[in-house]
Amino acid sequence: MNYPSGVKKGKIVSIISYKNRGMTLESELNDSNLYYKEKKIAYIYKKPTPIKLVKVDYHRNLIQEGYFEKPSTTDYNGIYKGKYIDFEAKETTSKTSFPLSNIHSHQIEHIRNIIEEGGISFLIVRFVRLDKTFYLKAEDFISFIDNNSRKSVPIGYFNEKGFVLKNSYKPLIDYLKIVDQILEVE
Amino acid sequence: MNYPSGVKKGKIVSIISYKNRGMTLESELNDSNLYYKEKKIAYIYKKPTPIKLVKVDYHRNLIQEGYFEKPSTTDYNGIYKGKYIDFEAKETTSKTSFPLSNIHSHQIEHIRNIIEEGGISFLIVRFVRLDKTFYLKAEDFISFIDNNSRKSVPIGYFNEKGFVLKNSYKPLIDYLKIVDQILEVE
Repeated sequence: MNYPSGVKKGKIVSIISYKNRGMTLESELNDSNLYYKEKKIAYIYKKPTPIKLVKVDYHRNLIQEGYFEKPSTTDYNGIYKGKYIDFEAKETTSKTSFPLSNIHSHQIEHIRNIIEEGGISFLIVRFVRLDKTFYLKAEDFISFIDNNSRKSVPIGYFNEKGFVLKNSYKPLIDYLKIVDQILEVE
Repeated sequence: MNYPSGVKKGKIVSIISYKNRGMTLESELNDSNLYYKEKKIAYIYKKPTPIKLVKVDYHRNLIQEGYFEKPSTTDYNGIYKGKYIDFEAKETTSKTSFPLSNIHSHQIEHIRNIIEEGGISFLIVRFVRLDKTFYLKAEDFISFIDNNSRKSVPIGYFNEKGFVLKNSYKPLIDYLKIVDQILEVE
């Protein structure tokens, strides 16, 4: 088997053990989306992570070598009240700010395109160590990027511009309530 | 290297040679979507093919074994006039009908969900040997499935219910013109 230069046979782990970290923001959102779907409130789903294929045996449907690519879009998208809805969800261990290294330049471009075409777009950011989850409108996120040279968004900006997402029972994170609030005002 | 039972080292091809078949329906649609995006008419993009990971070296970002999964959603989605838009594009070499084996059961479920939530959804089907491309509303496609036990959609159904997509210059396939026609009537 040929590895690309610099790559040797390394530690092998399965995706299951990697993903199984308990009730993360992702699992709470997946659960909420399932609730929205079952109640026919909205249809929102997670996109697969893009992978760059290097060696493929198409006859056996087998990928023998591939690499994870940086996502060029956001994690979730779907339909709410006929409208296009799209968001990115991130956790940070920082207590003071959300590092912009969490969002790639292609994702920022993607978010700009959604705003341009009138879609609903936002970030859900959880400050894990503060046990605080915010909804930040894409417009406010882009406005921060365009007007700052900082490499992270301070928590003060989330307090000022964002909406706090409290955990509820069904759904676990009722982010569409915030979407409704915003749609009413606009 | 361990292969799963029944899988032996096979012919290896690269994804580039596999995909490079000239001006396929897919490349014409990608080109059209680029045009729509540049002109700020719509923002529509292709989703990555889902892959089931079996062996991954996360330290080196290397996928050592994976399999293509049957897609559970459609190929393209995005925003047009703020609305959620979603479609599947397929080519067939049949001259008489479109085999339903081209669309998996999860995709049909996905299409039903989109209709339910008020999104715009349709199929683009090209009969390659007839040089004819049709736009078929998702509602008409689902209606055919629900009212027939046939394993393919006869071309007569496309002639009756569908819209012919003629090749144009910019964009190559102006399918949003059909979307506009339908939105006007509704």
